[in-house]
Amino acid sequence: MILLLTDFGTRDHYVAAMKGVIASRCSVAIHDLSHELAPFDVFAAAWFLRECERFWPAGSIFVCVVDPGVGTERRIVCARSRGRFFLAPDNGLLTFLDAEAIVSVENESLFLPQSSSTFHGRDRFAPVAAALANGMMLNEVGPSLDAIERLDYEPPRYGEVAIGTIVRIDRFGNAITDLDAAKIPGDMPAQIGPTSIRRHARTYEEGGDEPFLVTGSSGTIEISIRAASAAERLRLHTRQRVEMRRTV
Amino acid sequence: MILLLTDFGTRDHYVAAMKGVIASRCSVAIHDLSHELAPFDVFAAAWFLRECERFWPAGSIFVCVVDPGVGTERRIVCARSRGRFFLAPDNGLLTFLDAEAIVSVENESLFLPQSSSTFHGRDRFAPVAAALANGMMLNEVGPSLDAIERLDYEPPRYGEVAIGTIVRIDRFGNAITDLDAAKIPGDMPAQIGPTSIRRHARTYEEGGDEPFLVTGSSGTIEISIRAASAAERLRLHTRQRVEMRRTV
Amino acid sequence: MILLLTDFGTRDHYVAAMKGVIASRCSVAIHDLSHELAPFDVFAAAWFLRECERFWPAGSIFVCVVDPGVGTERRIVCARSRGRFFLAPDNGLLTFLDAEAIVSVENESLFLPQSSSTFHGRDRFAPVAAALANGMMLNEVGPSLDAIERLDYEPPRYGEVAIGTIVRIDRFGNAITDLDAAKIPGDMPAQIGPTSIRRHARTYEEGGDEPFLVTGSSGTIEISIRAASAAERLRLHTRQRVEMRRTV
Repeated sequence: MILLLTDFGTRDHYVAAMKGVIASRCSVAIHDLSHELAPFDVFAAAWFLRECERFWPAGSIFVCVVDPGVGTERRIVCARSRGRFFLAPDNGLLTFLDAEAIVSVENESLFLPQSSSTFHGRDRFAPVAAALANGMMLNEVGPSLDAIERLDYEPPRYGEVAIGTIVRIDRFGNAITDLDAAKIPGDMPAQIGPTSIRRHARTYEEGGDEPFLVTGSSGTIEISIRAASAAERLRLHTRQRVEMRRTV
Repeated sequence: MILLLTDFGTRDHYVAAMKGVIASRCSVAIHDLSHELAPFDVFAAAWFLRECERFWPAGSIFVCVVDPGVGTERRIVCARSRGRFFLAPDNGLLTFLDAEAIVSVENESLFLPQSSSTFHGRDRFAPVAAALANGMMLNEVGPSLDAIERLDYEPPRYGEVAIGTIVRIDRFGNAITDLDAAKIPGDMPAQIGPTSIRRHARTYEEGGDEPFLVTGSSGTIEISIRAASAAERLRLHTRQRVEMRRTV
Repeated sequence: MILLLTDFGTRDHYVAAMKGVIASRCSVAIHDLSHELAPFDVFAAAWFLRECERFWPAGSIFVCVVDPGVGTERRIVCARSRGRFFLAPDNGLLTFLDAEAIVSVENESLFLPQSSSTFHGRDRFAPVAAALANGMMLNEVGPSLDAIERLDYEPPRYGEVAIGTIVRIDRFGNAITDLDAAKIPGDMPAQIGPTSIRRHARTYEEGGDEPFLVTGSSGTIEISIRAASAAERLRLHTRQRVEMRRTV
């Protein structure tokens, strides 16, 4: 199956054109992952992928287009990871992927004729995805690459003090960190800028109406408020630093 | 087929993870009903389901996740109604369903390992839906229940005065009531708080630029303005009381 | 396959009801093109269709419902164009289509019983689309028509001065014109009201942070700013006139 992840929104015809190209060339199922990533937010796309790709079956083809550099010299890459395929611009979108094989997508015979310089999603990503769905081998798509671009991202550290980052504000206003709850002993408080949060809860409902910490669905610490936006109330945003340390 | 109804939005990876779990475990079609329900709005989900479930074929599996109590003692239930299956938290989401059989979803062998306490959509609803799609019987999912939670909802009354409720403001700004037009004789005016509306129309176009009443697509009375938001203009909102009575 | 294009949004149950009717009556794939067209914006729907329909395979059935006149005397039409089928209200939505055959959808035996006067998407478009997917011939749907309604749209002119129109502001804030870049010699500047733009770029990235002109993915001139909204910055909107003339 082919899975689409873009920042195109659905008000414009962009996704519809991509799907048409795919559906014209192969007969696998097409699923939307999201088209509502914030425009140009490559980090959000990378994190999104990290959080959901493992749930899809081997053979899935992920088509990821958050591509501010479309039409420039930036490469398009195709990576394979545990039987799944990932097409993306080489701009850091695959930062969190453990790739077993990577190629640079250069087989121009696969692209739409008169390929534009502003919409590679339709003109390059879509037909290449269809070719892969039809059984094309990775080495027919383009030459092998040793490495891909990675975003500047500092993984969390765990020691006396655990130091991590808010990586996502979700729709409900939960501020999701990259701090692995399993690596943080006990119920340590969290410090984000001037804000300190001490209470831990096991569920959103339990947490109640004041800010609390909860282990989210990816196993990392979240800052939440029940049925309200913690991010808005506490003015939290992505890329903010979070520290957790044992209190004296 | 499996049908998804949530308040997750599509900016985050939540729906993508659910779909991945389902697509990894069965090969039926997956359709989005909506992911844009207002966060935590169980009533909106219940009404949405009421308005569309009957149009889907027997065998359809509805996966409904508006679940502020995720991870608490609230049950997950699976109901069968005229050959269709409905998975939902037991929080009133199935208020308008005439269920023939209900079970409490307790067969933990169906859940994802290390099921989280914050995302049952992915960890419990999705794999149970896939199991049902693969032919699992309801009694294998969990023990039978006699009743489910129902929301506090007062059905409309019809007498000298017909009394109902605004149950939905739709995208176009139509204020949709639960008053069955077939039970209201003649062209009676409607009173909503201080606002009185006397004109009836058969179509939005006919109704024109001043507020009017029209029989909506579910057979109930709507308050509308042509090509504009009646709800905004008249400051209408859900749960408001609507009275219709013959004028002297 | 059946493709849905509406202004219904996805917060309400309207799309879900349409899909249910279709899925109950045929087994072809259903794809969303968009449900986020601005309410009542028939021109946006017409342009959307023009920009994506050619990418879909022959046999595709497009169901287009932007229908402020629902329930009035306006016709529903079904057009065939290069093997594709297009169902739409006869309100100009098919303005840009080169139809080989057109019928007026009048075979009431296809409609849902008790068809409403406010939701033909569910009650008429959906079952007719399913009938077409099941192999019904166009002449069984209704009588032939010689012509359909067309929107008041002035195509661009190319001469000493090229005169066109902004036809779309996309999600990224690009102002898309209908001026065919291939018909405009050299790098002529563009004038939109008081605003003059001289710089041309080949990609958004190259264009940089000041407004520039770029050949968009449909081959027409766009007014853009890199990673920002040109439309917002320059206060551009659809239907604005754009002139390009050689400078002295």
